[in-house]
Amino acid sequence: MIDQLVTTNVQQLIAEKQWMTLRELVADWPAPEIADLLNELGKVERVVFFRILPRKRANEVFVYLSLDEQNQLLKDLTDEETRQLLADLSPDDRTMLLEELPGRVSQRLLNLLSPEDLTEARQLLGYPEDSVGRLMTPNYVAVQRDWTLAAALTHIRTRARESETINVIYVVDKDWRLLDALELRRFIFGEPDATVASIMDDTFIAISAFADQEEAVRMMQRYDLDVLPVVDSDNVLVGIITADDVLDVAQEEATEDFHRTAAVAPLNVSYSDIGVPQLYRKRIGWLLALVFMNIFSGAAIAAFEETIAAAVALVFFLPLLIDSSGNAGSQSATLMVRALAVGDVRVGDWGKLLGRELAVATLLGVSMSIAVAVVGIFRAGPEVAMVVSLTMMLVVLAGSLIGMSLPFIFSKLKLDPATASAPLITSLADISGVLIYFSLATWLLGVG
Amino acid sequence: MIDQLVTTNVQQLIAEKQWMTLRELVADWPAPEIADLLNELGKVERVVFFRILPRKRANEVFVYLSLDEQNQLLKDLTDEETRQLLADLSPDDRTMLLEELPGRVSQRLLNLLSPEDLTEARQLLGYPEDSVGRLMTPNYVAVQRDWTLAAALTHIRTRARESETINVIYVVDKDWRLLDALELRRFIFGEPDATVASIMDDTFIAISAFADQEEAVRMMQRYDLDVLPVVDSDNVLVGIITADDVLDVAQEEATEDFHRTAAVAPLNVSYSDIGVPQLYRKRIGWLLALVFMNIFSGAAIAAFEETIAAAVALVFFLPLLIDSSGNAGSQSATLMVRALAVGDVRVGDWGKLLGRELAVATLLGVSMSIAVAVVGIFRAGPEVAMVVSLTMMLVVLAGSLIGMSLPFIFSKLKLDPATASAPLITSLADISGVLIYFSLATWLLGVG
Repeated sequence: MIDQLVTTNVQQLIAEKQWMTLRELVADWPAPEIADLLNELGKVERVVFFRILPRKRANEVFVYLSLDEQNQLLKDLTDEETRQLLADLSPDDRTMLLEELPGRVSQRLLNLLSPEDLTEARQLLGYPEDSVGRLMTPNYVAVQRDWTLAAALTHIRTRARESETINVIYVVDKDWRLLDALELRRFIFGEPDATVASIMDDTFIAISAFADQEEAVRMMQRYDLDVLPVVDSDNVLVGIITADDVLDVAQEEATEDFHRTAAVAPLNVSYSDIGVPQLYRKRIGWLLALVFMNIFSGAAIAAFEETIAAAVALVFFLPLLIDSSGNAGSQSATLMVRALAVGDVRVGDWGKLLGRELAVATLLGVSMSIAVAVVGIFRAGPEVAMVVSLTMMLVVLAGSLIGMSLPFIFSKLKLDPATASAPLITSLADISGVLIYFSLATWLLGVG
Repeated sequence: MIDQLVTTNVQQLIAEKQWMTLRELVADWPAPEIADLLNELGKVERVVFFRILPRKRANEVFVYLSLDEQNQLLKDLTDEETRQLLADLSPDDRTMLLEELPGRVSQRLLNLLSPEDLTEARQLLGYPEDSVGRLMTPNYVAVQRDWTLAAALTHIRTRARESETINVIYVVDKDWRLLDALELRRFIFGEPDATVASIMDDTFIAISAFADQEEAVRMMQRYDLDVLPVVDSDNVLVGIITADDVLDVAQEEATEDFHRTAAVAPLNVSYSDIGVPQLYRKRIGWLLALVFMNIFSGAAIAAFEETIAAAVALVFFLPLLIDSSGNAGSQSATLMVRALAVGDVRVGDWGKLLGRELAVATLLGVSMSIAVAVVGIFRAGPEVAMVVSLTMMLVVLAGSLIGMSLPFIFSKLKLDPATASAPLITSLADISGVLIYFSLATWLLGVG
């Protein structure tokens, strides 16, 4: 039995949310004592207390609980009241206090829950948003390596109804660590008396529950798989994800990137369902930010007011030049954003791709210079045409370089590479375009 | 036996590529006679002749051939020499002459081929580019409804190795028409003596081989399926498509839409593999087109040269106003392009969505008017601020309406809704922005 005083002390620390003190207090206690203490606590206290235990310790404590106590704890873990309490923790505290649950606890917890409760449970298990852990289901069939195929098939039969797939059967050890992934046909067409070990090939592809969901998309595409086993950091099998779930993710990620590229915050709801106030909120942020961004283009123009006043005809070519720069930049940025998203290009590849981008941008710049020179000669004579043509060459180069670099810069800043890329590039292209154009004009035409 | 003269006549018509005459000639011939004639012809002639037969007739003729002759014909169908001849037909002739092959012929043909030959065979079968027919594989297991489960399992066992999935087993009738799609577990866990008919539920979801691949993406997402059976226009099962294939399609379609939105022609190859000349070609087309488009903005500005000369300070706000219009328009267009692509919105929904877009655009316009009015007062006094503020309101509305409408207009014109949407909208926003801004300025400030 645990000292009543100790229990009271622990309860007080929980009430005062003195998490760190509590954690230090129990750091050296033996697991059986913590297990006893857990049973003395009320429902909410018990969950909080269990949740702040270090991972290894939590596993030991869990083993010391009776089966009934284990189930009760797991049910309490997902109870609304305790969930709320845990959710109220600040994100920093959460990361510091709440570790990943031990693999065995996760597996038991996930199997215990109704599908409706799964969404919240995945959150409680500590897997970050957009991680594979948030997407997986516990509805798979696992067998042990020393079973006979007949015994395995009997087990598969009992689990078949609630399993997402029985195309693939997983082999785990006593601690539920993943050993192999075998196709059902091997069990059906093998000798019933043979052991599972005899049909194992020891080759399988698994994904970490902490991996980004986009990584799962890439793995399924690369290896042409319809289902992937998900393991935690101890290589314990905690779930599976299927291609149809991953398909949803791929579509959602693409949609978010599309919206981000055009400076719309991710909607989190289908376009046809969203209301006017939400749609306004998703769009206004970047639009306002870009207004202030564009004041710089205005300021650049204001700096050349005299040049403009002296040669108003120059303004004719302004939209054409800055838009061309922005268009070339958007092309480069979009190519890069998508190549990064599908894993075709990595964040470290910027230098490697720079040469090719320069070559393409030069070709584009030359072609467009020629096109605009023809327009320039007819419209404003050879002198202005030369300025416009030279400007076009330079702004297409500048736009392309800004466009290809921005997604990499965003990645380095831990932002999504797609973030507002198209309008930002348009604004940056405007500023650089105005400066290049009127500087050249002032210099070459001797105006201003 | 067929008359030697008839054979010579047919051979001559083939040599002269008189396809229509040939087709009319044999229209009324009985199937056994055509079968005999086929055997008289050389390899290339035989294939061409078979390929131009009307669908129903081709099926009858095929049945009259011996098994050897059938296999020979099918192999010849995919032979390089005959493939080339058929490929050389003009697209119009192809559509007119080459009908869909009968379901039984398709199934046999696909099963006969190596995976490498499948790509070309799908083309020969007459399924259009980007159709489900081009994506399917013939590697599935089909059983008959009057078989026992034991017999079905024996068949499944023999076909298991080369099947893409055995999670789902298909039930077909004697003509290979699809009757049901059943999960393998039903076969394993049913009574061995029971018939397949006894475990059928007569509910299944299938997709036409002629459907667009994007439709398959939507169906798999909506019904959470990992595999879809593919049927031809006679409801004959011709193949299956799996979620991992569809995942590739979804990613490719999204990539193409991304590129199109930024005015890059679809690459058809991964970004990291493309060379400088191809990349140049994919980008220059729209860039040049947009240069000429932007001449209109220049012309609009030129029309207001006097206004500008009289109040050069107005130019300060020009990039800000036209970019804001373009940004709002790009947001609207991107939201719509993606909603159309994932099937969230249909082409007929324009009118229904117009009201919401107007409401959101008005809110955005008011917010941005206020923001720009503040800048305007400090920079250029209350009069110019009023003009700028009012212009902002109008150009955000105009940009949003153009942006939301353009994808629908492209759809009506049978173009991809994503086509160059962002830069086109920027250009259109420029033109309308310049006209609105300087018209208001001329009118309200009395300049020009």
